[in-house]
Amino acid sequence: MPQDLNALLCPKSVAVVGASSNLDSISGRPLKLLLRYKFDGSIYPVNPKYESLHGLPCFPDVSSLPETPDVVLIAVRSSLVPEVIEQCAARCVPFVVIFSSGFAESGDATSQERVIELARRGGVRIVGPNCQGLANLAQGIPLSFSASLDSDRPCKGPVAYVSQSGAFGFSSYSLAVDGGVGFRYVVTTGNQADLDVVDFGMHFLRDPEVRLLLIYLEGLNDGERFLELLRTAKEKEIPVAVLKAGKSPSAQAAAKSHTAAVAGDRAVWEAVLRQYGAIELDDVEDMIDLGIAFAAPQRPEGKRVAILTTSGGAGIIMADRCSDLGLDVPRFSPQIQERIAAHIPSFGSPVNPVDMTAQVINEPEGFPVCLDSALSSGEADAVVCIISMITGSSGQAMADELERAFRRSSKPILCSWLIDEEHGGQFLKQLHSAGLPVYRSLRRCAFALASMVKWQTGRTPIRPAIEASVPFLSTLPEELTEYDSKLLLAHYGVPITREKLCLSLEEALSAANDIGFPVALKVISPQILHKTEAGVVALRLSDEEEVRNAYGRLLERARRFDKDAQIKGVLVQEMVEGGLECMIGAKRDPVFGPIIAVGLGGIYVEVLGDVALRRCPVDEEEALEMVRSLKGFPLLAGARGSAKRDISALADMTRRISELAYVEKDLKELDVNPVIVLDEGHGAVAVDALALRGK
Amino acid sequence: MPQDLNALLCPKSVAVVGASSNLDSISGRPLKLLLRYKFDGSIYPVNPKYESLHGLPCFPDVSSLPETPDVVLIAVRSSLVPEVIEQCAARCVPFVVIFSSGFAESGDATSQERVIELARRGGVRIVGPNCQGLANLAQGIPLSFSASLDSDRPCKGPVAYVSQSGAFGFSSYSLAVDGGVGFRYVVTTGNQADLDVVDFGMHFLRDPEVRLLLIYLEGLNDGERFLELLRTAKEKEIPVAVLKAGKSPSAQAAAKSHTAAVAGDRAVWEAVLRQYGAIELDDVEDMIDLGIAFAAPQRPEGKRVAILTTSGGAGIIMADRCSDLGLDVPRFSPQIQERIAAHIPSFGSPVNPVDMTAQVINEPEGFPVCLDSALSSGEADAVVCIISMITGSSGQAMADELERAFRRSSKPILCSWLIDEEHGGQFLKQLHSAGLPVYRSLRRCAFALASMVKWQTGRTPIRPAIEASVPFLSTLPEELTEYDSKLLLAHYGVPITREKLCLSLEEALSAANDIGFPVALKVISPQILHKTEAGVVALRLSDEEEVRNAYGRLLERARRFDKDAQIKGVLVQEMVEGGLECMIGAKRDPVFGPIIAVGLGGIYVEVLGDVALRRCPVDEEEALEMVRSLKGFPLLAGARGSAKRDISALADMTRRISELAYVEKDLKELDVNPVIVLDEGHGAVAVDALALRGK
Repeated sequence: MPQDLNALLCPKSVAVVGASSNLDSISGRPLKLLLRYKFDGSIYPVNPKYESLHGLPCFPDVSSLPETPDVVLIAVRSSLVPEVIEQCAARCVPFVVIFSSGFAESGDATSQERVIELARRGGVRIVGPNCQGLANLAQGIPLSFSASLDSDRPCKGPVAYVSQSGAFGFSSYSLAVDGGVGFRYVVTTGNQADLDVVDFGMHFLRDPEVRLLLIYLEGLNDGERFLELLRTAKEKEIPVAVLKAGKSPSAQAAAKSHTAAVAGDRAVWEAVLRQYGAIELDDVEDMIDLGIAFAAPQRPEGKRVAILTTSGGAGIIMADRCSDLGLDVPRFSPQIQERIAAHIPSFGSPVNPVDMTAQVINEPEGFPVCLDSALSSGEADAVVCIISMITGSSGQAMADELERAFRRSSKPILCSWLIDEEHGGQFLKQLHSAGLPVYRSLRRCAFALASMVKWQTGRTPIRPAIEASVPFLSTLPEELTEYDSKLLLAHYGVPITREKLCLSLEEALSAANDIGFPVALKVISPQILHKTEAGVVALRLSDEEEVRNAYGRLLERARRFDKDAQIKGVLVQEMVEGGLECMIGAKRDPVFGPIIAVGLGGIYVEVLGDVALRRCPVDEEEALEMVRSLKGFPLLAGARGSAKRDISALADMTRRISELAYVEKDLKELDVNPVIVLDEGHGAVAVDALALRGK
Repeated sequence: MPQDLNALLCPKSVAVVGASSNLDSISGRPLKLLLRYKFDGSIYPVNPKYESLHGLPCFPDVSSLPETPDVVLIAVRSSLVPEVIEQCAARCVPFVVIFSSGFAESGDATSQERVIELARRGGVRIVGPNCQGLANLAQGIPLSFSASLDSDRPCKGPVAYVSQSGAFGFSSYSLAVDGGVGFRYVVTTGNQADLDVVDFGMHFLRDPEVRLLLIYLEGLNDGERFLELLRTAKEKEIPVAVLKAGKSPSAQAAAKSHTAAVAGDRAVWEAVLRQYGAIELDDVEDMIDLGIAFAAPQRPEGKRVAILTTSGGAGIIMADRCSDLGLDVPRFSPQIQERIAAHIPSFGSPVNPVDMTAQVINEPEGFPVCLDSALSSGEADAVVCIISMITGSSGQAMADELERAFRRSSKPILCSWLIDEEHGGQFLKQLHSAGLPVYRSLRRCAFALASMVKWQTGRTPIRPAIEASVPFLSTLPEELTEYDSKLLLAHYGVPITREKLCLSLEEALSAANDIGFPVALKVISPQILHKTEAGVVALRLSDEEEVRNAYGRLLERARRFDKDAQIKGVLVQEMVEGGLECMIGAKRDPVFGPIIAVGLGGIYVEVLGDVALRRCPVDEEEALEMVRSLKGFPLLAGARGSAKRDISALADMTRRISELAYVEKDLKELDVNPVIVLDEGHGAVAVDALALRGK
């Protein structure tokens, strides 16, 4: 049941507890802002020290307010907060925003728990503590003490922003407004004692005016809800861009003491954000760049970029930056080149990048032809125009043409105009007002376009349809061996070695004959998990005689290794020869739950870290993409004259194990290693595996 | 003999050929700018159409000028340029700047050659053609048509900038000036028919006021001179930052048609720039960020960063960005933490990042203590201050404290103030005026600091002392075999397999006994270079009998493979068993000449591209760094329980082969593969090698 936050975002009455006469202090500014924005509901300052504040009657406490306000802003020191909450609960205040710091983030979990408990009694929902509040900019309602709101700058637009950090949230908001981004909402959630980033995000996705959801995150307690947010966003075609802080060790420690957040594993975060279609950000400038790009209505259908430039050099740099970010800058066909060539000097270039040269200073008429040719060519999914120091009437002509083309184009047009404020400020302003995304940096322009392309062409994350599956792990012994782990795999349709757990030499000989020589023998015991190190494995036994010799020797070694080891039997197993060694692993991540990993075995994973991660489950297509993304993939695809391996079998096994890890909630870890991937058409086999229970 | 460019950069008289009455056209603006900057030498407009222009007498041609000008600016169409040059040559004009396009960049090499030839006759030095000229900003002398100079903005400062691209050069200059960077010179060199980036760079390195040399490059004809520029810069402690465009295929094609530049190999460029201490840039914003950072006098002695922040979130992001760029954010010692903790709220953090929290709005007094503690701690090489939306008197107090600390600090202080223009513009202006590097982006601040650290702690490129060595390659047969290639290696002290080229079975048997069994046999023929594929190699022959059998068989196979093959003999070679397979290669790059490569063998190089490149020669330390930089290095260092290999032997071999490649000018390629690296203390051996002659 989604939380209805309308009364919070659009309250009819607001009380400010701890309201101060110093309008530029943390406790004074909320009042100043409500007055400045001409809040048309009731404002109730609460402070026993004053009779009235700034022309408004002031009340000694929440209990004495003439009505129950929709929102109570709390700006008193942390020790006084519980009492305020008690009063709010008594009056059934629907929402409080706690600015005060000194709760979980300073290691004091108890006082925060107490506040939550008191609030819950009266059904009071909390924003914060340790936050800077929020602002509904669409309707001009500030519930915050941030100076960034203390301004008449135009700030409205289609971006909704939720930030865990208060100071960063409003600082980046303010820089983004300066950078030309327009917002509908800014919310800072701080310690998220109750309402969190996901609650607000979900609410904003229901607003048809929102065109981009920005999120600043330090950590998450419930990854699943966050993923549901990303899935919903993708379904509603609202891009989500996430700045995830706390990736490096020192940053992770800082995140813990900042908003008491568990930062989580960097590689998992990066993989999951990519998998769920979120755009990852690194800096406040990325927010600005996307805010500008996604405000325009056009979306690229593919990654082919046409570059038109008045500076050959800048065009080359742009081609490099596009290429860095995975975009293509294809040569125009001879027909298009011909059409363009007629309108640029002979020392220019019609190829793509199209170098119109600085000659447009003298002859700006060629530009619209180049622009229209690129847009209508069918050979580009977006057009990037780079303009250097083209000033005066030539500059004006280019700005006008760009605006004209943008207004009727179905394809994105982005502009990187490398000009100073004095000579070009008015052109940039004109284009920005028209809604055309314009940048002064080549790289940032390329980044914005690449982000649009990635979002637009990314897959829609799957909604697992396998919830109903019955876990199988519970039917297996408490302490799991290779044998048990492979029963688990087999239950999910993962091909495993043909094998039999034998309790006598006779049984082993018979099994070996059934399976066919050569075979492997392994002593199975929950106490001997590293079998090779313990010497209880014999490989490539080619006849009965060898099986006979190995059987007793292995059991004796097992007893020597651990005389109390509980021997479950001796596993007689087919030998899988040839093929390429890979590995598939699954692990329960504290934030996102089951994570699947696939990689080439041995050094590839251990030394080179060449492994692809995803959140479980993955479908066949995603699994194939994982395999293809490996640096060592050419070895599977048949590099260096070796055989092409059964890639789809490896992908299928990855998918199956991802479903296993998703369904088996009691599985902590699963290591399937090696997986032997045979030649194309011959499948892949799990040769060894070990599962571990736990949460 | 360095070129004296003083008369060009600081002329006493300037003629403008093609001067136009339209002061905002390409041919009119040079005059406009000279007048605007109140150029105090003589200005001679040249155009047969006018008697006078803008109050100056106008001359029909260069021949009729009353004196020989120091510089002639040429703004006529390309077909008219040769005649102008002829007249300049006749009058021994020392410098011409050719704005005109339509020479080598449009595929017309002939007309450019003709211009060069005509100029040379009169000793005329050329800037351009296809450029936008230059500006000596230190003395206010514009020799350009760029609108970016048509301004009264303050633009003076310690940065010298040379750009191959005219439009990009002056556009990026103009943006950088808006971004707060001050310049001494901006020069655009275009097609570089004569004077090039290196000529100007070398000149600027002799100017003691220059603190940063910025270079925009598309390609180079003479890599060696460029490297000498980088070496000189490092010796003079002037950082050089290079934006190298034309890395992606489409960009390389565009570079060719833009300034007729050969873009060169991306990996080689990146390796060489790093090796020679240059900072690599990607965008105009990088130029701005470094221009601001290097204008400050302090330099970091190491990579430890202290982060002070009023926004916990921004501090965490900064820690992440620092970590991304190789900087350390170490925890403060308990003593420093204690000192800081006394001046920040309990819900802040004294660890590093130091979270002072937004409480500084109410109590700004703690900030100077935190700042001084960090600066004097001895635990940080630089301090980064992040300030969020701290406005009014609190903001002013922070700005004042920062300025005070900066003025007396020997350590770099950088500031990232995340505030909008309206609330914080004055603080940023104050800090900028004081010379303190200040940024609104966290990432860009981290990038600037990381660049300073890299430059400051980078090695000084070596000046090869082995020029005098005598090439040995000329003593070897024209067509080189493994045997010859290894003689070449041995000449440079590279350990090779013990081996003997034998002409009879008797000789082979005797050699095998001398070398010791097992041995390998290989048929040596310049026509059979891929011996394994031809089947003319036999490995691990363990006695005379096996040598006897193999000898005839191999020769027969050789004859079957190519009946006309010239057989030089059969190589009897020791078998090197164990060890790890690596490879060392050398190649002649069209831009930089001899390049050395080292990597682990096989898949590491071929599939994973895990190879370290440098320009030859490298010394022992650089070679060791190459080996250590390999992703597969842990395998050499003894990962996964394997033996530690003789890393220094591999580095020594890399150094020797780099010297070989440097000395042997007739070597085109050398592939030493495999190099077997034995256990630590047991050396490394070149087992197979093939050299190729050529340029």
